[in-house]
Amino acid sequence: MKSNWNYSTLGIPDEMFIRAKVPMTKQEVRVVTLGKLRINSADTVIDIGAGTGSLSIEAGLAAKNGVVYAVERKEEAVSLIKKNIEHFGLSNIVTIKGEAPNCINQKLMVDKAIIGGSGGKIDEIFNWLDLHLKPQGRIVANTVTIENTYLLIQKLKEKGYEDIDITQIGIARGKSLSNLTMMIGQNPIYIISAAKGVRK
Amino acid sequence: MKSNWNYSTLGIPDEMFIRAKVPMTKQEVRVVTLGKLRINSADTVIDIGAGTGSLSIEAGLAAKNGVVYAVERKEEAVSLIKKNIEHFGLSNIVTIKGEAPNCINQKLMVDKAIIGGSGGKIDEIFNWLDLHLKPQGRIVANTVTIENTYLLIQKLKEKGYEDIDITQIGIARGKSLSNLTMMIGQNPIYIISAAKGVRK
Amino acid sequence: MKSNWNYSTLGIPDEMFIRAKVPMTKQEVRVVTLGKLRINSADTVIDIGAGTGSLSIEAGLAAKNGVVYAVERKEEAVSLIKKNIEHFGLSNIVTIKGEAPNCINQKLMVDKAIIGGSGGKIDEIFNWLDLHLKPQGRIVANTVTIENTYLLIQKLKEKGYEDIDITQIGIARGKSLSNLTMMIGQNPIYIISAAKGVRK
Amino acid sequence: MKSNWNYSTLGIPDEMFIRAKVPMTKQEVRVVTLGKLRINSADTVIDIGAGTGSLSIEAGLAAKNGVVYAVERKEEAVSLIKKNIEHFGLSNIVTIKGEAPNCINQKLMVDKAIIGGSGGKIDEIFNWLDLHLKPQGRIVANTVTIENTYLLIQKLKEKGYEDIDITQIGIARGKSLSNLTMMIGQNPIYIISAAKGVRK
Repeated sequence: MKSNWNYSTLGIPDEMFIRAKVPMTKQEVRVVTLGKLRINSADTVIDIGAGTGSLSIEAGLAAKNGVVYAVERKEEAVSLIKKNIEHFGLSNIVTIKGEAPNCINQKLMVDKAIIGGSGGKIDEIFNWLDLHLKPQGRIVANTVTIENTYLLIQKLKEKGYEDIDITQIGIARGKSLSNLTMMIGQNPIYIISAAKGVRK
Repeated sequence: MKSNWNYSTLGIPDEMFIRAKVPMTKQEVRVVTLGKLRINSADTVIDIGAGTGSLSIEAGLAAKNGVVYAVERKEEAVSLIKKNIEHFGLSNIVTIKGEAPNCINQKLMVDKAIIGGSGGKIDEIFNWLDLHLKPQGRIVANTVTIENTYLLIQKLKEKGYEDIDITQIGIARGKSLSNLTMMIGQNPIYIISAAKGVRK
Repeated sequence: MKSNWNYSTLGIPDEMFIRAKVPMTKQEVRVVTLGKLRINSADTVIDIGAGTGSLSIEAGLAAKNGVVYAVERKEEAVSLIKKNIEHFGLSNIVTIKGEAPNCINQKLMVDKAIIGGSGGKIDEIFNWLDLHLKPQGRIVANTVTIENTYLLIQKLKEKGYEDIDITQIGIARGKSLSNLTMMIGQNPIYIISAAKGVRK
Repeated sequence: MKSNWNYSTLGIPDEMFIRAKVPMTKQEVRVVTLGKLRINSADTVIDIGAGTGSLSIEAGLAAKNGVVYAVERKEEAVSLIKKNIEHFGLSNIVTIKGEAPNCINQKLMVDKAIIGGSGGKIDEIFNWLDLHLKPQGRIVANTVTIENTYLLIQKLKEKGYEDIDITQIGIARGKSLSNLTMMIGQNPIYIISAAKGVRK
């Protein structure tokens, strides 16, 4: 069954995705993340550690004349991404099952990169970006730990990235309890974005 | 001078807007707000209490075959909105200077409504929406006070709105201090969205 | 078995309390709440809606020459409070099982009042405080809903309370995941405190 | 003029301190910080980077039979601490002007340590703590940058500290605007606490 999402903004509600037990980036974090990425309609985008694919799906809607590569090592998650691609009727998302960056075609050049989960391979991923992210291309990463937040900032500085932006976002959502609105806190997320320096 | 923003996502950085002393909705709040509004490319949108017009501008980019009415009572702010309209090269935003809702054309029907500032006229604005917001049309409001958050929720329930969503968003942005990243907190914002009930 | 807590500050860790399924005020919220209450060592304190009694226990340690009345309607919770009183070796906490304020002795005069849960009886509780909270006595309330936060502020203003302070506190706690520290968000809490006006 | 603070809990309101342009730890952060430190009335406490001395003052009230050493390199801040010591009528706080840890008496042994500002000397301070913080003694640090948060966690693990607790606290305070309560966000603070391992 197709979703009825046909809007020209980011912002697909979480419950419109086909979900499993895989944790999913929440709507508010998703729109801020993709807003920081600045997708152009013709962009080639890579989503490393795509998880449920919710970022890939919205990126695919934004890059409607481009293509999104969703890289994910877990079989269950890849299967879920494929279901969501079908659910949203998209034909510009390619799933790649495997360990990033080794599983990615060595000829691919991307305009934008999403780092959802690094699987502990930050060095390898940035070495790959050295060769495959176009100059002035942008990256965005979501981190939930202090250590990965720190390591990503250090790596971006070391690699000469520009326009480094660190935003922490804390969301609470109202839940109806009879006639009351109880605020339920989410985990705070760091959204780290940057543009590749011209010389790299 | 024209801006060089030509992306297919929400997310214009704050510093790309022409700004004055008027307080401006921050980028992260703007993308979440418009994400909750679910703009369609052909929508007619009204932005009541448009302030600097940053929400109107991004709404205008999303409703590229529609039109956005930016209503604002302060002369200085209207002038700023006009500058930003020109800066972003938009031809689908109409500014209305005056006190909402009285200043608005009585024949206008809208698909989406943004309530940025109510100027204490919540009752009048909702009475206007009774007549001028299409069934299933969506509204989104940003509130910074407990009282307006409460009153809006009550009003939405009283008027039979559906899909009421209350989200609080707390943002902290990194500021570089030599080689350190100090997190600077913003004021928490409530983003309240809902869809007009079918019968109203 | 007695606890080994013998410190002169607030701040008992959550895991030192005997707990059940009853939700418990978290340590950080507890210390800020009692800090706003400004307990004197000889104070008479009432804790209305005492729940697990964690606020009563710390209040009892602070009011070491005074007395704390812990009012709670649920049998299971009263039993838990009693276990914690014994666990922390306190002899100055009196439990009152029943619906506040009717269950409270009509001769009691208090210096400080904690409103943990109002059970929808805000009017009755404030009428009781009119008669039983000493002038300049302080109250503190924890709220988790927008509606109760609003209603309490209105009530405090209506009753002429002074020094009204509204603080929202959002806590995230680090959780170790191998060598990483993942931040886990808690629900945001409003801490509302005030002093009774002299004339009331 | 003496302050009229004579309560048995933490929680001195910010405005009761004599203040200058030196940034001051906010009340809510102060009570959580000292709550995590678990001060005993007979403790010897060191406050490294004492700033305005607000943490030292509350620590001094809690350690009423002990002593607090407030170490601060800036003359202006030391002078402010002395004024606050007099204002609160405390006789158990010793100020040490100079660069920590070199300026501290080499015979001092402490039960508790507060690290308010490290001045980039984390290594030296922890080497000092190796020798001068008693086994099972506790430390607490407030950090506002991602880098110092990360480095402190690494240092605590490297030095074998136990019971490492990382808490992020985000506070918003209500500000009255006519009859509205606008929430004003503070900068988020990390509060890092731990106990010295027995063998160190």
